[in-house]
Amino acid sequence: MNSDRGRQLHLGVFLDAAGHYASAWRHPATPTDMFFRLDYYKRLALAAERGKFDMVFFSDRYGIPDRYGDSFRATVRSLHSARLDPFTLITALAGVTERVGLTATVSTSFSEPFHVARQFASLDLLSGGRAAWNVVTSTSDNEARNFGEERIPDHDSRYERAREFLDVANGLWDSWEEDALVFDKEAGVYADGDKVHYLHHRGRHFGVRGPLDVPRSPQGRPVLVQAGSSDTGRDFAARVAEVIFTAQPSLDGARSFYADMKTRAAAYGRSPDSNKVMPGLMPIVAGTEAEARETEALLAEFADPLAGLAILSDQINYDLSVHPLDGPVPELLEATGMQSRLKLVAKLTQSDSLTLRQLGRFYGGSRLHRKIVGSPVQIADFLQEWFVKGACDGFNIMPPYLPDGLDKFVELVVPELQNRGLFREEYEGRTLRDHLGLPRPASRSRS
Amino acid sequence: MNSDRGRQLHLGVFLDAAGHYASAWRHPATPTDMFFRLDYYKRLALAAERGKFDMVFFSDRYGIPDRYGDSFRATVRSLHSARLDPFTLITALAGVTERVGLTATVSTSFSEPFHVARQFASLDLLSGGRAAWNVVTSTSDNEARNFGEERIPDHDSRYERAREFLDVANGLWDSWEEDALVFDKEAGVYADGDKVHYLHHRGRHFGVRGPLDVPRSPQGRPVLVQAGSSDTGRDFAARVAEVIFTAQPSLDGARSFYADMKTRAAAYGRSPDSNKVMPGLMPIVAGTEAEARETEALLAEFADPLAGLAILSDQINYDLSVHPLDGPVPELLEATGMQSRLKLVAKLTQSDSLTLRQLGRFYGGSRLHRKIVGSPVQIADFLQEWFVKGACDGFNIMPPYLPDGLDKFVELVVPELQNRGLFREEYEGRTLRDHLGLPRPASRSRS
Repeated sequence: MNSDRGRQLHLGVFLDAAGHYASAWRHPATPTDMFFRLDYYKRLALAAERGKFDMVFFSDRYGIPDRYGDSFRATVRSLHSARLDPFTLITALAGVTERVGLTATVSTSFSEPFHVARQFASLDLLSGGRAAWNVVTSTSDNEARNFGEERIPDHDSRYERAREFLDVANGLWDSWEEDALVFDKEAGVYADGDKVHYLHHRGRHFGVRGPLDVPRSPQGRPVLVQAGSSDTGRDFAARVAEVIFTAQPSLDGARSFYADMKTRAAAYGRSPDSNKVMPGLMPIVAGTEAEARETEALLAEFADPLAGLAILSDQINYDLSVHPLDGPVPELLEATGMQSRLKLVAKLTQSDSLTLRQLGRFYGGSRLHRKIVGSPVQIADFLQEWFVKGACDGFNIMPPYLPDGLDKFVELVVPELQNRGLFREEYEGRTLRDHLGLPRPASRSRS
Repeated sequence: MNSDRGRQLHLGVFLDAAGHYASAWRHPATPTDMFFRLDYYKRLALAAERGKFDMVFFSDRYGIPDRYGDSFRATVRSLHSARLDPFTLITALAGVTERVGLTATVSTSFSEPFHVARQFASLDLLSGGRAAWNVVTSTSDNEARNFGEERIPDHDSRYERAREFLDVANGLWDSWEEDALVFDKEAGVYADGDKVHYLHHRGRHFGVRGPLDVPRSPQGRPVLVQAGSSDTGRDFAARVAEVIFTAQPSLDGARSFYADMKTRAAAYGRSPDSNKVMPGLMPIVAGTEAEARETEALLAEFADPLAGLAILSDQINYDLSVHPLDGPVPELLEATGMQSRLKLVAKLTQSDSLTLRQLGRFYGGSRLHRKIVGSPVQIADFLQEWFVKGACDGFNIMPPYLPDGLDKFVELVVPELQNRGLFREEYEGRTLRDHLGLPRPASRSRS
């Protein structure tokens, strides 16, 4: 079946400590004593590698959500609200994994491009070409308050800064040509000075002279991941992203998003293969559908509506605690922040007329990403349908709880996908670009 | 001899890719093809661990020196001028080492305290309590130009920002009390909200509300290393440093520096044991003194005076290339930047009347750190004398070239120190604070 191999799925796994179902940390099988230890993430990353995943993926947020009830106390009390810096985490994983791609989120709103470009270039070298950066612009006032500001900048300003940030980062990654290092000990020539270039960037947000002090890395540049879904966000992704992470609840919506992203990329002169659209997907899988439903029933027992409401309140900078939990979801006219989430919530509450409590449980669960419960064959059918119907190039798998949710996917679903010829049986290349089928970018030559 | 064990030496190893002698990368034994690969640094760190070193240490600088001759071309051509981000490097080492402390340099002049505190707290958790931060303020205009500024801020402004930066970082590390995490799955209690605290910092340079989203790490806070030698720098070190790295060419100077740092610490209510003074030391060691001298003669063949002059020009923001190489070292009236270096250079050129070429070779070699050439017994005698005469608590060993320079020290000198009862034969604790005999700081309780 795998002989004349067709187009292949790409799979990432979106990790955190507990898993993605609301209050998953309360599941009896989550090892809370390991949540802040490298051995645990090593175990998870090795499971992903055993499953031949393209990459592991970590999101980020600079602070503990505290908009709901105007305090972090309730959040810290009942939610898994502490974390490790994701860049630090994937870097520690570089030494204890061999093949899997390593993706961390860093916001362009509170960092210097020289530092970010330098850390990712260094990681790309140290990991043998497995680094990826999920570019976000941050959405909450809560985060801004850890960086000297009272409010998060507005949506367009954030993206304007992000565009300039990426211009600088790309320029820095290109400042050493491929063959600049010479290492001629006899002649005393370390590098060819004509193949190293100043950047001389002077923009609205940044002044960066360059060159980077890190030579060109195995992937040329780290893989760029992006998840903006607003019009501005989509445009930004079309311009720079090589992997597009997205929340798509329905097949039709996903197909239309997919087509839109390929068209937008073309408008920037990029081929349809130059970005891989990978929606988030929460698979609740067991040997049979009945067992999978039992698994979800157990998870649902723990789900605290606060899980969704605390995160959402922070993302939209609006305290949802002022409305009764069993009343309808209010109109969110004063909310700001994450535009695409606001639209999706509005759409969802219109069609399903949810209460706030229901929204909290639902949003805390998969955060508007699609959830699918079933047997390995049912899950594989779902993935295959979306893939062949032009809804995606693969998925960012969101295990409902960890480590079991990932282990089960690797043991039960991956072999089924491999049997169908939809997914690799072995890694064929060394770098994340190899896994994703992305070209290695050429260095832009400058004088 | 080791039965009634007395005071013990502490040893760090100051690593880079090539080693510290001028133009060491040209030594036949340096593996230039490994300079940007994790396997190489893993090999070096494991050698340090075999030698029971307290820690490995990486310096930093944000850019390629380009003051000398007003361009980076000559520097890039003949010097080992590219590097890896040191924080990224020690984090990758966390997963492949067990015991050795991991020290990286980060400047307070171009970063946000929330990011730096968060990355070090995460590394301290992932490494099981082995993280240390070498705090610097940067000295060169070259670096400022990668962060939107034309000139490096003046000395006092940099230290003022550094003090506030450390106040914020210490506050963030203390924002989760030791026992804040509860993990009671039945009751649904993740953490005790009363044991997590806002910081509410509003200062001249930073506004940081907190709390950190990383729980308290194994060491409470990472070990703080500092190397300021000016009056302001010493005062800062006395206030915050737990390890003091310093360039001390003479025994008398080192003794006076040591006494001064212990006195200054006392003025801040700190015990003499609360900081460990560890001068840099370049040991050129072989089985016999004659062989050691041959080793140095070979290294000296490669030494390019540019090695010292390019780095020094950048550190003092003054282009030394306008003066003839074989003329005397000029008076450096227009120089700025690294105050302590300027004073030391002035003192050195006064007493020895060096030419610029000689200064370049000398400075490029050990950068004013003490060099000692000899047999294992001679090297051990030197370390012992400085240690017992109150000049230091240990040394930051600067191998002249790598990996051999470190391997030889571990194979030849460490056993000699162990035989004399001056250095541990096995690690006794798990954390870097354990190795250094530093107390675990108590979390400052706040309401």
